[in-house]
Amino acid sequence: MQALLTDRYELAMLGSYLREGIAERRGVFELSVRRLPPHRRFLLVAGVDRVVRYLRDLRFSDAEVDYLRAQPGLADVMTDAMEVYLRAFRFRGDLDAIPEGALAFEGEPILRVTASLAEAQLLETFLLGVINTETRVASKAARVVLAADGRPVFEFGARRVDPAMAPHAGRAAYIGGCAATSCEQAGLTFGVPVAGTIAHSYVLAHVDDGEEAAFNRFAESFPQGTTLLIDTYDTRRGALRAARAGAAVRAVRIDSGDLAVLGRDVRRILDAAGRPDIQIIASDDLDEHRIRGLLEDGVPYDAFGVGTAITLTPDSPSLGAIYKLVEIEDRRDVLVPVGKRSPGKPSSAGAKQVYRRLDASGSFVEDTVRLADETLDPPTDQDGAPLLVPVMRSGKLVRDLPSPTEATQEARERAVQSLRSLPDGLRLLDAGVSPPSPVVVSQALRMLPARGD
Amino acid sequence: MQALLTDRYELAMLGSYLREGIAERRGVFELSVRRLPPHRRFLLVAGVDRVVRYLRDLRFSDAEVDYLRAQPGLADVMTDAMEVYLRAFRFRGDLDAIPEGALAFEGEPILRVTASLAEAQLLETFLLGVINTETRVASKAARVVLAADGRPVFEFGARRVDPAMAPHAGRAAYIGGCAATSCEQAGLTFGVPVAGTIAHSYVLAHVDDGEEAAFNRFAESFPQGTTLLIDTYDTRRGALRAARAGAAVRAVRIDSGDLAVLGRDVRRILDAAGRPDIQIIASDDLDEHRIRGLLEDGVPYDAFGVGTAITLTPDSPSLGAIYKLVEIEDRRDVLVPVGKRSPGKPSSAGAKQVYRRLDASGSFVEDTVRLADETLDPPTDQDGAPLLVPVMRSGKLVRDLPSPTEATQEARERAVQSLRSLPDGLRLLDAGVSPPSPVVVSQALRMLPARGD
Repeated sequence: MQALLTDRYELAMLGSYLREGIAERRGVFELSVRRLPPHRRFLLVAGVDRVVRYLRDLRFSDAEVDYLRAQPGLADVMTDAMEVYLRAFRFRGDLDAIPEGALAFEGEPILRVTASLAEAQLLETFLLGVINTETRVASKAARVVLAADGRPVFEFGARRVDPAMAPHAGRAAYIGGCAATSCEQAGLTFGVPVAGTIAHSYVLAHVDDGEEAAFNRFAESFPQGTTLLIDTYDTRRGALRAARAGAAVRAVRIDSGDLAVLGRDVRRILDAAGRPDIQIIASDDLDEHRIRGLLEDGVPYDAFGVGTAITLTPDSPSLGAIYKLVEIEDRRDVLVPVGKRSPGKPSSAGAKQVYRRLDASGSFVEDTVRLADETLDPPTDQDGAPLLVPVMRSGKLVRDLPSPTEATQEARERAVQSLRSLPDGLRLLDAGVSPPSPVVVSQALRMLPARGD
Repeated sequence: MQALLTDRYELAMLGSYLREGIAERRGVFELSVRRLPPHRRFLLVAGVDRVVRYLRDLRFSDAEVDYLRAQPGLADVMTDAMEVYLRAFRFRGDLDAIPEGALAFEGEPILRVTASLAEAQLLETFLLGVINTETRVASKAARVVLAADGRPVFEFGARRVDPAMAPHAGRAAYIGGCAATSCEQAGLTFGVPVAGTIAHSYVLAHVDDGEEAAFNRFAESFPQGTTLLIDTYDTRRGALRAARAGAAVRAVRIDSGDLAVLGRDVRRILDAAGRPDIQIIASDDLDEHRIRGLLEDGVPYDAFGVGTAITLTPDSPSLGAIYKLVEIEDRRDVLVPVGKRSPGKPSSAGAKQVYRRLDASGSFVEDTVRLADETLDPPTDQDGAPLLVPVMRSGKLVRDLPSPTEATQEARERAVQSLRSLPDGLRLLDAGVSPPSPVVVSQALRMLPARGD
């Protein structure tokens, strides 16, 4: 089902590798982000769990092989041997990864795949697509959650993205710290809490008796508690009506207008109506900057609904992760470092490991990117702990996979720790003057000679 | 499989509608784009075919209903009656739509759903997600294709987006005029031509004997013709090696560096090596502006590979389509127009139709948005032709669905006509001074009183 979620060139290369007899050479590919995208000081890793399930389950179906055989562009290499190869395909390599919910920075391998050249090549597109999407969303969600300073953030952005992506975005946003998603499928697939009450259409649908009746009816439908959307006609009047719609009303949401003015006015109206217990939720194209602005101005919002900013990240729509061959077996079966030298886009040769140093209080201090097999002699407390952990060995899982719900929860809990460990400089939301990069590259890695042309 | 690709609030409202006894009231919802996003002068509609298949197939599985029954947030409304409703759910309404491949502008309903309030409400999230994604991608692809001025554009952006979205993006890009996509699944599902040859990793993998051997081996693998990527180490040297790799080499691709300088140099090198027949393809974060710049400067590129710009549209990451209730039956079973008045985000009441006027040469002149039931008295040639066409009636397809491949081809052919019909003012790529909006709103629609609060 997922085998053709790959780029044509992966299959063209695979065909050539088979013909040339080098398909089984061992290679190491790393997935990393060359530079943090604009407006980001850290990444929060998400998507690894999906990658692992993909690697575990990857097979070519008959229909997929038949389709490939019929493609004129592949006819030169779609031999019987390639067909046999594809039908027998299993991922039999190793995967090391930075765990979901951990911080990552520029130049750090988030995933490291060690496998036959043909296998590792084929995975490129899927792995990039997943990490580019989920890490992008989780990293942005974390910024929004930091800005909300303890108040819940609800991710409402399913409608802005492809429906097939929405559950994954909901999961990534939850890992990043959102309290819930609007996407129901994220609840079913990943156990993410799901939230949502009414749209403007609900109020409009009560055309005979208007907003007041709509509010009363909805509160009657949800006696255990609900939130009312109060800006369909007149937000202040809506607030008053919500205050009078009974004890089931736990919150109101404002989705348009001057949120700073309206937030204060609605608070006053609710309080004056004897409902200081009703919380106020803001939405309407919010992002971390608008949320921080509202809170710094003391506007009394209790929670935020954020859509586009989290799922489409318009300030940095592309994470720009890359997947590069860093080592390959030569004809003597020795793994040698390789890297391209394309101007402005060189790749860093050699299999890597990241060592993360925290201070005594658990605060993040610095990462050192080293060769994976670099010996620390003598090892000291200053070396930090290795960040990439073994996930698969020879195609087998190193530990039983937790359920998707458990994996999601684990990632979210790790993210809480990660965000707590962020020093102030990396927590800043504004671009402004950047703090020095928290990533050091070891001398051994810097001096590594890449074999090449 | 797709029923829970919806927002929680759609289900919460559905529950309340059932409890209140208004679920079966007939309503009209329209999906439209309030304002064209920045840097866009037209939209090219895509995604309708997927919407239709969704409406045709939408069912709640047992697992989905069981999940919903277990959700605490829905417990108040998840009655036996709602369970029965969901298990029997079918879309039984009407769908009218602007066909895929047609132009659309601000304020025009791309989809109009006329159905029971409960049904039409439930669809919102999926319909928005699909049109927001596919129309966004197709519209951008069309701009890039216009900039390329007849030269092929290959969409290479699968790796930048969620893998589950990639085939749909490939289809939308193809509708927008791209010659092919890199996404193999778009070929299998939608019959989109798929293209791609080698990555830098292929060259790096030939560590024993280098780029020259890599090129020769790949050309041997694809005797019917292929494209070589020449910037792994040194682009000019790569060009020379490609020129000497045999007749199978039909094109070279440059993916880094100064594309203006390199394009000219590589052309000279290929020509001097007796290979004027080898075409040159540029990639590397291209968009319509960079492509136009290269071509205006006379850089001799023959084709372009474009990824991020098409699938993530960083200049306008969000299309911002909305789905609004515009008419609802009142208690006397009369459909009445409704609209919200939220500041800055009002909705336009009343079911609408768009009349498109072309001149004698087939060039686009103007759209008029009218009430769907507005009588044109007397009708004249100046009225234009209605743009939204009936697609479903009472849940049944008005015509047999073409295969996904046929539907995609049909949409692409319509898009060719649409782009050909664009007047110069709407063809401009730059923001600059905008031409006057090509959309007129009829007096009857402007004067329509919305029933409300």
